[in-house]
Order: sequence, then C-alpha cells, then structure tokens
Amino acid sequence: MANDKKLVEAITSMDVDFAQWYTDICKKADLIDYSSVKGCMIIRPYGYAIWENIQKILDTRFKELGHENIYMPMFIPESLLQKEKDHVAGFAPEVAWVTHGGSERLTERMCVRPTSETLFCEHYANIIHSYRDLPKLYNQWCSVVRWEKTTRPFLRSREFLWQEGHTMHATAEEARAETVQMLNVYADFHEQDLAIPVIKGAKTPSDKFAGAEDTYAIEALMHDGKALQAGTSHYFGDGFAKAFDITYTDKENKIVHPFQTSWGVTTRMIGGIIMTHGDDNGLVLPPAVAPIQVVIIPVAAHKPGVIEAAQGLADRLKSDFRVKLDDSDNSPGWKYAEYEMKGVPVRIEIGPHDIEANQCVIVTRHDREKTVVSLDNLEAAVAEKLQAVRDGLYAKALANREKRTYNCETMDEIIEKLAENGDGFVRAMWCGDPECEDKVKEVTGVGSRCIPLGEEAIGDKCVCCGKPAKQLVYWGKAY
Amino acid sequence: MANDKKLVEAITSMDVDFAQWYTDICKKADLIDYSSVKGCMIIRPYGYAIWENIQKILDTRFKELGHENIYMPMFIPESLLQKEKDHVAGFAPEVAWVTHGGSERLTERMCVRPTSETLFCEHYANIIHSYRDLPKLYNQWCSVVRWEKTTRPFLRSREFLWQEGHTMHATAEEARAETVQMLNVYADFHEQDLAIPVIKGAKTPSDKFAGAEDTYAIEALMHDGKALQAGTSHYFGDGFAKAFDITYTDKENKIVHPFQTSWGVTTRMIGGIIMTHGDDNGLVLPPAVAPIQVVIIPVAAHKPGVIEAAQGLADRLKSDFRVKLDDSDNSPGWKYAEYEMKGVPVRIEIGPHDIEANQCVIVTRHDREKTVVSLDNLEAAVAEKLQAVRDGLYAKALANREKRTYNCETMDEIIEKLAENGDGFVRAMWCGDPECEDKVKEVTGVGSRCIPLGEEAIGDKCVCCGKPAKQLVYWGKAY
Repeated sequence: MANDKKLVEAITSMDVDFAQWYTDICKKADLIDYSSVKGCMIIRPYGYAIWENIQKILDTRFKELGHENIYMPMFIPESLLQKEKDHVAGFAPEVAWVTHGGSERLTERMCVRPTSETLFCEHYANIIHSYRDLPKLYNQWCSVVRWEKTTRPFLRSREFLWQEGHTMHATAEEARAETVQMLNVYADFHEQDLAIPVIKGAKTPSDKFAGAEDTYAIEALMHDGKALQAGTSHYFGDGFAKAFDITYTDKENKIVHPFQTSWGVTTRMIGGIIMTHGDDNGLVLPPAVAPIQVVIIPVAAHKPGVIEAAQGLADRLKSDFRVKLDDSDNSPGWKYAEYEMKGVPVRIEIGPHDIEANQCVIVTRHDREKTVVSLDNLEAAVAEKLQAVRDGLYAKALANREKRTYNCETMDEIIEKLAENGDGFVRAMWCGDPECEDKVKEVTGVGSRCIPLGEEAIGDKCVCCGKPAKQLVYWGKAY
Repeated sequence: MANDKKLVEAITSMDVDFAQWYTDICKKADLIDYSSVKGCMIIRPYGYAIWENIQKILDTRFKELGHENIYMPMFIPESLLQKEKDHVAGFAPEVAWVTHGGSERLTERMCVRPTSETLFCEHYANIIHSYRDLPKLYNQWCSVVRWEKTTRPFLRSREFLWQEGHTMHATAEEARAETVQMLNVYADFHEQDLAIPVIKGAKTPSDKFAGAEDTYAIEALMHDGKALQAGTSHYFGDGFAKAFDITYTDKENKIVHPFQTSWGVTTRMIGGIIMTHGDDNGLVLPPAVAPIQVVIIPVAAHKPGVIEAAQGLADRLKSDFRVKLDDSDNSPGWKYAEYEMKGVPVRIEIGPHDIEANQCVIVTRHDREKTVVSLDNLEAAVAEKLQAVRDGLYAKALANREKRTYNCETMDEIIEKLAENGDGFVRAMWCGDPECEDKVKEVTGVGSRCIPLGEEAIGDKCVCCGKPAKQLVYWGKAY
C-alpha cells in the first residue's frame, strides 16, 4: 500500500494543473523521455507500441482502399520546395536546413521534409503519362520536421511521426471524393478505435494547408475543453500539377493536368488519447490500440497453485488478446497502481479463493468496476469488457463534448458561456469575412476550428458583424 | 510478341555489363526512381513492398526474442556525437549537418543520425539504475544518412532504411551471446527466407565498426563474384557505457557499467537479392518476401468463362498466398515478360483447354519449368512450387559461391585463380598483421571480408609474409 500511494501521489491532479498532469502521464506511463535534442522526444517502447497498433489498423484500411506505400527521400532541395509559391511561403519559415555534407558545404542547401508534396509531384511528373497511369494512390509512413518554437510531447514537437497520403486523379470529382473518403476513414478510426468523437469539417480559407484549395479536418474536444485538430485531408485541384508540369494524355488524346489530394495523421493522436480519456490515476487506453489489453495479477501469489492458475489464464487468452501476466515480486497493490497508470483497459485478479470457486475478478480501467466472472466464460467475458471500456470511453468523451458545446448568437454570449461553463466548442454563425474571424478570436479567445459538414444553420446573422451569415462554424481554443 | 520482345530487349545482359544490368533491373522492375535529391532514391511501391515483407519477418523474430521497438530523434547534437572518440572519428566525415532552423542559425549544429549509439547511450544513462533494469533489448526501424561520394540504388545511398538494435546487459558474456544470437538471426533469415547463403565471421580490427570491440558480419557472394556485407552485429564491451557514464547498482550493491551491443540490416539486402538471384529476364524474388507470390494470367481471355475461371483460382489462393490476377487488355506474352521482369516466383496460366481438362499450367520463375497441375490439388501444388523456387534459388546461389571459392596459399595463387576463374571468395591464412592485410589488397585486389566462425585452418603460414598464421580469412572484392 505504501508503494501504491507513492505512485499515485506522483501525478499532478488534472483539475489542479492540466498541462502538468499531461506531462506527468507522458513520463510516468513510460510513453516518452527527453534527450539533449531540444524539441524532439524519445518515444519509449510502451508509447511506440501504441503507435505500432495505430499504424497496423490504418495501414490495413489504406491498403483495402487501394493505396500503396512508398518511400521518398527525407531531404528537399531548396529550389524544389520553392516551386509552388503558397507552399514555400507556408513552410520555409519552419524547416531545418542541411548545409554541409561531411566537411563540404553543399552547392544547394536542402531542408528536412516538413511534408512531401513537392517530392511526390516531382516523381508524379516522371511516372504519369497516360490516363492508364491514373489514379496513383500512394502513402508514406515516416518522420517529418517542423522547427516549432514551443514544443510539447506528441502535441507539437520538432520531429514527429506520421503518414502522408498523396494521390493523383484524372478528374476533380474523383480527387474530391478521395479527400472526403480519407476524412471519413480518419473520423471512423477515431470514433470506433480510439473512442474519440470528432467533428468533421472544412477549414476556413485562412486556416487551409499551404497550397491547398480545400482543407478538411477532424476536430476533437479534449477533457479540458480545448480543441485538437486530429487529422487533415486536402484537395489541391491542379495547382501543384501546373507548378510541377504534371500532364497526361486523356482518353480523347488531349494533354491535361491531373487532380491531387494529400492527407495525414500523426503521433499527435497519442496526445489526443491521453487528453480525452486519461484521469488522475493515469493513462486510459482504448482497447484497439492498447499494447496490453489485459493484465493478469496473481493475488497471494506465494500460495500453491496461484501462479500456475494465472499462467493458465494468460495461455488461454493470448491467442485472442494482447495479454501480460505480471508475476513479479511487487505487491498486488503496487501492480494495480502501475497498470492503472499505464492505462491497461482490463485487469484480471486471481487468488486462492477465486481458484477454489472457478472464477476470477475483472476490473475495467475507465470506471474501476469489479465483476466476478466464471472461468468457464472467460474469453467471452474479456471480449465483452473490452467492448464496455471502448463504449464507456466514447460515451464519457461525447458527454464531455456535449456539456461543453455552446450555441451562441452574439460575442457577449460567447464570452459569458465560456466564463460560466469553461472552455469548449462554440457553435456560431459566420459571414465569411476573415476580419470577423480574427475579431472573434481577439475579443472572445476562440478561433475558428471548422465549418462542420452536414450540420444545419442555427441562425442567419454573423455572430460578429450581424450581417447575413454564410456558414455555421465551430470555434474553440486549440492545442 | 512484339511487346514481349521489346520489354526483354530493354535490359542489358548481365554478362555484358553487370553494373548496367543491375541498374536496369532497379528501374524496369519498378523498384526505384531517381529524384533531384542527389544520392538518395525513391523506393517505389513494388520495391517498398519487398521491404515491408522483410520488416514483418524480422520484426516478428526480434519480438519473439524479447526486443521492443522505440523511436529516437533523427538529429544528434555535435557534442553528443563527440562523446566516444573512435565513434566520432569514424562517422563525422560522412554526416549531413543541420545548421539552421527556419531563418535562425542553431547555437549548436546537429547531424542527421548516421547510426544512433550516442542517442541510445544518453537515454540508457537516464533509465538504467539497477540490475533490475537489465537487460534492455531495444530496436529501431528508421532511415539514416551517410554522405557517400559514390552511390548506387540499395547498395550505397546517402539515405537508407534500416533497423538498428541496441541492447544493454549486466555481463560481458550475456552481451557477447546477444551479438552472436543476432548474427545467427540475420544468417538464418538470409538463408531460409532470402535463399542467400552467407558466411558468418568476425571483421578484422581494421574493419570494425567505429567504437566496437568486435564486429561480426554475414558475407554473401553475388552472381558476379563480388562480396556483399549483408548484416553486422557489434559487441561494444563497456566502452560507450564509460564514455556516457552509464552505471547501475548490481546485486552486491556495487556501482558498475553495463555491456552493450548493436546490430543492423538495411535496404541493401534488396540489392543482395537482385544480384544473387536475378537473370537476363529480370528480377527473381525469393517467395518469402515477394510482394506477389503468384500471378494468374488468363489465356484467350475473351473466350467465355476464362476470366471467371482465373478469378476463381485467385479467390481460392488468396487466403494462403499473395496473389495477383492480371485481367488487363495486354497480351499473355506481354504479361509473361512483365512478371518475369518483376521476379514473381510462380505464374499460373489458364485457358479454355485447361478449364475443360480441370487443370492449369504452373511456371516457376527461376527455371521457367512448366508443370500441368490438376485444379483439385491447386493449393498444395502452389505451396510446393514456391518451396521449389526457394530451394532452387538457394542451390544455384550456393553452387555459384562454391564454384567461386578458392583456397590459396600464396599471393601468386590468388592472382592466378582470380584471373582464371573470375572474382570470388579467396580463402587464405593470415598472420594478423594489418600490414599484410593491406598488402594482400594492394597486390591481389581482394580485401579481407571476415574471419569465418567455426571453419578449420587450411594451412599454418600467412599467405602474405609466410610467418605463422593466426586465422583463416575470407577475402574478396566488395560492394
């Protein structure tokens, strides 16, 4: 019990200091470590295993939809980055520049890729010649670098891991459909697998990706009421294709430009998991991506047959679930605290009394509910409990978002509701003028997050200027 | 047939110009493309799929042996790289330096990792405190950069993909055992999965990894008689641990240094596959890593029922094998040449006559042998043929190595045998003096490749100076 207490005391309470609570979890759950490389993080085995599970699920979905993986160089020559003018303006201020190879100065400096549109376009110009070469549905898993001033583990770091999909299509319609399809893949993955409800929407023009015609995003609300952009999908039209001179001969034998998309999600999602589901006992992981789904803890392990019985449960469960038996010398109480900190969704306790009664105790992480389960139905009970954790996490996150979503008609109402109820999503109408967008942020503190897809207008006047409104917008403070 | 011929004519014959043949295959089999990033390559989907298959097999083996994946920053601050003196001397001349972030000059420049010993050591110093923290068995899949002057796809490029295992152990014995275990994992993978026979051995002192006490390697002989170092495993003793001040409290409560290893294989293995198994019709892939193991080609596809029958075979086989049905408009002859170029191990042809006779034709890539197979036994026949391809490739590669391995007692004999029989492995005794090692290379053209493990001496005098020999050495010209 002493150990138990010590472990729990080591985390700051989320209500006292959410930012410190977040950092504590990153460290105490063994997700990351710092190094002498400023602004970058070491992703430790437990954190990396979450990423591997995310990769497996998404990679399978991408491939089912016909995408192929590829690997592009990590460097971009300066002249190549400059080919599309909006793109270079957006990224040049935040790239890392390589100027020397060994002891020699390079004739042209190169940046470490912040994103790879330019490299893909150069390659597409080489390999796309005929309508038979389309579509090209490529994806890359890699790390990218953006020279951020302020960094936080997973949420904003100078290097991060991601996937970047880059596709080329014969028609604008097909490219637009791909953009929306991949947004939906991201949304489904978040809702089903990560148990994180998201708003799907378009970014306002001021918030689009550098060089894109349209940028779509999924936006999630964290426990503290701040918004997290959790994935983006861009439609480029033929802008890059023109800048990079990518053409093909269509069925009518005309030479035309193809239409392009890109889409990405990053290790930032791990930050989203922490801030959506975590609590004062530590991390809480959605079962689909948890490195350990079930931890088995023998109670009174020194008594005859207990370790063997625990091992028997592990053997039974390991073909269906990611299982760990902790038969170390530490006390059960220490272990409970340890695996709660690590967010393991389901814990099984088994001791002499349980063995005698042909049962075990299952504890679900998110609500600490204990259930006595007959060993005859163990596999089914564990599957059911894992589903209960996913559903419970989703319901809790959705309730938090609903509680913290405010329909507002005036700026005063925004200020009032945020002051009364805390940070959250503000739903308010907008005229489309970037000046109003800026003013809302300046006066109320919330910026535009997205123009939601498929939601009805809640009024007809701009929340800022009172002129006719064009769109409903979600506003919020963002990570 | 016109198409067929054109495709085959496009490759240089390996006997005419082996280097050009190699480059032709890299391009024509759609493995790579070049970009404006000099010395780096684009790994195209077909090439990358080979790498993904390699990763899956090795990653599973590493994890079965208790290793965990981790992700370290891609940058190394100059002061960190300099902490181990041999290491920095070995790598500093060939790293890419980042000097600016955005528009600001960095206070300390950083290199893009050429290898990550220094980063792992800094982390180990943070997380290893007690004997209970050992061993640490970590691995990383990533890309690394070494600023090579002369580059060739897969074999030597400025950026390449690899895995780097880094482990820490309580005792020297345990670390040495890990070094040898991982060398054996690499050797087994090459022999069983890649069908490439290898010599396991130790590097001579002049050829060790920068900072290692011992370096082991597997050496393969390519079709042209040149050697390829295909994987390395290093034992560091406690040298880095001392340089990085990594200590732990042992069971006797003494503060001591742990012992370290590292080991790696790279995308270079794909070059090894090409140069071991390829022929004048293109690539030949070992089934374990082939993106497509079985290609199904309908013959007289316009006749009723042919496409459906071919689709039926694909459906039957797809749960057990990686299968592709090519029902495109191209002629069967064009398709045969195309999938021979791509090295698909097994081709199935099915036409109206076959359908009537309840059979299909299976053609194995490496020997172009045709077998008529009853559809009743299709799954078993395909499995058997894939095994036959693996065994046939291994036997052919082994025969090439045996034919090209020369036991030599004098320098003249080395020169003679190489001149008579072409490049290959020279087995000759060595006194251990680096001057003799250099002289052998200078006079005969072959450098020391490795001191083989577990092979008997073939004499007692140094091939160079005639003084008492210490070791048998494999010598060769290397990629």
